[in-house]
Amino acid sequence: MRGQVPTLSVVLEAIRDRGTVSRVELAQATGLTGATITHAVRRLIQLRFVREAGQVSSGTGTPRRLLALVPEACHTIGIQFDRFRTVTVVLDLAGRVVGRRMDAGAGVRDPESMTTALAEIVTALLAETGVARATVLGAGVVTYGPQDQEAGVLLTPQPTDAWQGYPLADELARALGIPVLLENDATAAGLGHAGLGSARSSFATVYMAGGIGAGVMLDGQPYRGSSSNGVELGHISVDAAGEACTCGNVGCLENVAGPTAIVSRARADPALSARVDLAADTLTAFRRIGRAALGGDPAAAELISASANALAIATVTLVNLFDVARVVLAGDAFADVGAVYRDRTQQALARSSFIRAVHAVDVELSVQSTDAAAIGGAVTVLRDLFESARRPRVRG
Amino acid sequence: MRGQVPTLSVVLEAIRDRGTVSRVELAQATGLTGATITHAVRRLIQLRFVREAGQVSSGTGTPRRLLALVPEACHTIGIQFDRFRTVTVVLDLAGRVVGRRMDAGAGVRDPESMTTALAEIVTALLAETGVARATVLGAGVVTYGPQDQEAGVLLTPQPTDAWQGYPLADELARALGIPVLLENDATAAGLGHAGLGSARSSFATVYMAGGIGAGVMLDGQPYRGSSSNGVELGHISVDAAGEACTCGNVGCLENVAGPTAIVSRARADPALSARVDLAADTLTAFRRIGRAALGGDPAAAELISASANALAIATVTLVNLFDVARVVLAGDAFADVGAVYRDRTQQALARSSFIRAVHAVDVELSVQSTDAAAIGGAVTVLRDLFESARRPRVRG
Repeated sequence: MRGQVPTLSVVLEAIRDRGTVSRVELAQATGLTGATITHAVRRLIQLRFVREAGQVSSGTGTPRRLLALVPEACHTIGIQFDRFRTVTVVLDLAGRVVGRRMDAGAGVRDPESMTTALAEIVTALLAETGVARATVLGAGVVTYGPQDQEAGVLLTPQPTDAWQGYPLADELARALGIPVLLENDATAAGLGHAGLGSARSSFATVYMAGGIGAGVMLDGQPYRGSSSNGVELGHISVDAAGEACTCGNVGCLENVAGPTAIVSRARADPALSARVDLAADTLTAFRRIGRAALGGDPAAAELISASANALAIATVTLVNLFDVARVVLAGDAFADVGAVYRDRTQQALARSSFIRAVHAVDVELSVQSTDAAAIGGAVTVLRDLFESARRPRVRG
Repeated sequence: MRGQVPTLSVVLEAIRDRGTVSRVELAQATGLTGATITHAVRRLIQLRFVREAGQVSSGTGTPRRLLALVPEACHTIGIQFDRFRTVTVVLDLAGRVVGRRMDAGAGVRDPESMTTALAEIVTALLAETGVARATVLGAGVVTYGPQDQEAGVLLTPQPTDAWQGYPLADELARALGIPVLLENDATAAGLGHAGLGSARSSFATVYMAGGIGAGVMLDGQPYRGSSSNGVELGHISVDAAGEACTCGNVGCLENVAGPTAIVSRARADPALSARVDLAADTLTAFRRIGRAALGGDPAAAELISASANALAIATVTLVNLFDVARVVLAGDAFADVGAVYRDRTQQALARSSFIRAVHAVDVELSVQSTDAAAIGGAVTVLRDLFESARRPRVRG
């Protein structure tokens, strides 16, 4: 399921980190052999991702030829959508966001019209940023699960029955004229947070936007499970006496702590509804509740606090089960109140002696909460290209 | 963290499965190249695990030489202990249990005296079974976590403070005069259930004895996490309003569903205590409650039912997070009432539409509930020997 750390990705990252660099320095920096570096660099130059960039003398020896990244050589696109938002980004080869826009989510649109809308968004974004479509390697479309990633298909009737089994990746690839792959939002947020430099890192991502999900990166590779639908944090039970969920479980985290649940409780509070304008989509309303909480509204603060507590307990579960030493919070729902969740989770983990007996667990808030998943979609395409010999997944 | 499937293990398993077999048939059975088979067989003959066993003619070609396992060539020992029980087994190279005994657990003994007791148990078992110590490759000592497996040390003050940081594997290796490695009980139970033939299988193990733990096997390799302390199911919260645990969490599964909690509740019920003799160690008392439940005692049945419900909910969490398609229940606490837990868990998973949308999840009860973890300890040693070039862990 997981293979070697992708060599091309490691070498490219080392070149990107260093600006200009010699092959000898690359071998030192990566721990790879000279032969492996030579092979990888040749392939990167073939791909026009890297160019020769002069040489430096090295004392008494022969001069060393330098290598540099060609950031504009190619681009990848990441599209993250749920019912409420669509975030689209264009990344260059250096992993820099060179274009970004936010649009409406899927709402209850049928998949055909949403696919058409996404293709128009991409076309508009490429025009805005002046990126030629010929330089675009592919797009990663990022949304909730369950998914059949190999087939590029959603396995859920959300937001409407027509989405169940709809060939999203294939249809979007056809509409865009570029290869498209499908990725889980929480996994993508982890990839987006770590960027291409994630070759060796291990951490869990807790993702909260419309719903709640999680992803785990182990040695730089996403944990996939047996069907690429692992780490479904939103539908784990945090309350044995809680209400039944449509998923068949009781007391699901998403129903206790998620934006939909919190907004629904806020709307049921006439006094709070009078103070905070909740006549908006769920994510917007949730962010308004969060800002009211930060501004000192006690009812709003209580709702956010209850949500943060439940999420903290679920995150302890996640850490206890996967034994990771780092947790990243990402997703649009954390954009305003992420620090509250981060601190509450850090406290819960500090209290939890089980894993603390073994190692500390750090919680951090993604600096790009809202965009991490979209960026991760673009990162996935680049990683996938490098790894395609091993795991062919991109279609077009 | 995870590497290739161990070739020697795969080849040995294929030989074991087939009784006598030619190299050509091995290549067909394993999908390995002829050169890899030749190399692996040479090494297995060097180790005296395999012998030449005559030849068969193959039509017009040259006769094929046959290979056979030498089951008595070597043995491994597995020792599983907790506070209540010590189960010790001797396995031959065919993975058959050739000796087994059950003794008292650690109770509140200090680690030095328990180590001495374990060494005496092993000596007695070898004498009983007539296995020469010289044929014993090593022992796997299996117990609860958290652990530092590399160091062979427990990271918990259970059952007494003196156990925290005690060099269990090293001291036991010294006392036994054979290499010893330390393994987690739930992971070992999975290895014991799957045996050496686990090279490719993926499943989760839910382990209940004195406590509750879990293990995950992915493509035949145990999931280890960042510090070999993953999958700590007993200390995930299943009740946000539950009581505080010494681990710092609230509503921990072990406190809701574990034998200690169930026995404690039974002892608080005078009528039930009058019907069932609970004056015994926790595991014995739990098994008596279980048998009373099976015999129709309504109070006992209610306790077992509540425990099974909570465990079922936690198992749905485990499956949602790790995305496995098979769950195995193992451990002494399942010896009598395992079918109740199996059925309840299967029902909960069948209700849980999230993962069911993707694939079916089967629950099975280990046929060797009580011994699976000890057998897994012995299996671990054999696997570790084969993989030692890649991951040196056995010490002696």
